[in-house]
Amino acid sequence: MFDAAGPVLGIDPGVSRCGYGAVARGSGGALVAQAFGVIHTEPEAPLPERLAVLQRELDGLVRDLAPCALAVERVLFQVNTRTAMSVGQASGLALAAAGRTGVPVFHYSPNEVKLAVTGDGTAGKAQVQAMVARLLRLKAAPRPADAADGVAVALTCIIRS
Amino acid sequence: MFDAAGPVLGIDPGVSRCGYGAVARGSGGALVAQAFGVIHTEPEAPLPERLAVLQRELDGLVRDLAPCALAVERVLFQVNTRTAMSVGQASGLALAAAGRTGVPVFHYSPNEVKLAVTGDGTAGKAQVQAMVARLLRLKAAPRPADAADGVAVALTCIIRS
Repeated sequence: MFDAAGPVLGIDPGVSRCGYGAVARGSGGALVAQAFGVIHTEPEAPLPERLAVLQRELDGLVRDLAPCALAVERVLFQVNTRTAMSVGQASGLALAAAGRTGVPVFHYSPNEVKLAVTGDGTAGKAQVQAMVARLLRLKAAPRPADAADGVAVALTCIIRS
Repeated sequence: MFDAAGPVLGIDPGVSRCGYGAVARGSGGALVAQAFGVIHTEPEAPLPERLAVLQRELDGLVRDLAPCALAVERVLFQVNTRTAMSVGQASGLALAAAGRTGVPVFHYSPNEVKLAVTGDGTAGKAQVQAMVARLLRLKAAPRPADAADGVAVALTCIIRS
């Protein structure tokens, strides 16, 4: 599916909060979270400045983590136009960073992420977070929740590959 | 409204075809089209590659034309989620390029563009194109149509300032 030299970088795209998580297979096949976090942008700042910050951070993640694949959560088609525009702006920056460096990109719907991580496509947030912690053998799920979502998308890509 | 040192760069955002037009006030106040065109991306290519191409071209326009402002056509709220995502991806790249260089950004709805250029917010495409040609004292409207749309957005920003 992809060259497994680096981690899979999962992205839960958003302009206000963009969650990310980098997961790799360690020796023996264990899943290891190499990095996770949330890129925040200031709601009071003009949108172009916020997108420039997000672009710089996403470009930095792709450069520093050298992922073998990018896994991006797909927007639901039920959301409104404003939300879709905003998610499009954030995901576009992530995809362009991948495109520039030739990193393959995979998309997963929220239901696909839930199904891969918990076995149930309708699982709740708490169940997804508990399974993220269990799969990575962490004492607690990555915080904040957007970081756990980024990790869950990366896990989905690895589990399905 | 904005420092008038460079042209206004108008953008009609889209991933397949992204129209642009740079309009400045020449000596004596005449409106002059300094550049216009369409950035095309290959529909067959993977989306990340297409967005990387679009990003490179948009970054290049902002760098080479040194606009005093970016004018971006706003997506209609009636469009579907897929279109909104796609326009969001393209406009996000344009906004990030502006944000990185501190160029102020203005948004206009399609109706605002029609109203500014023709005096009628419900004008048809042909009327907008005819007025773009007349305002710029061109023999014919810029071709293809997406380029004329980019020019019309830039004209809107100048007319309203």
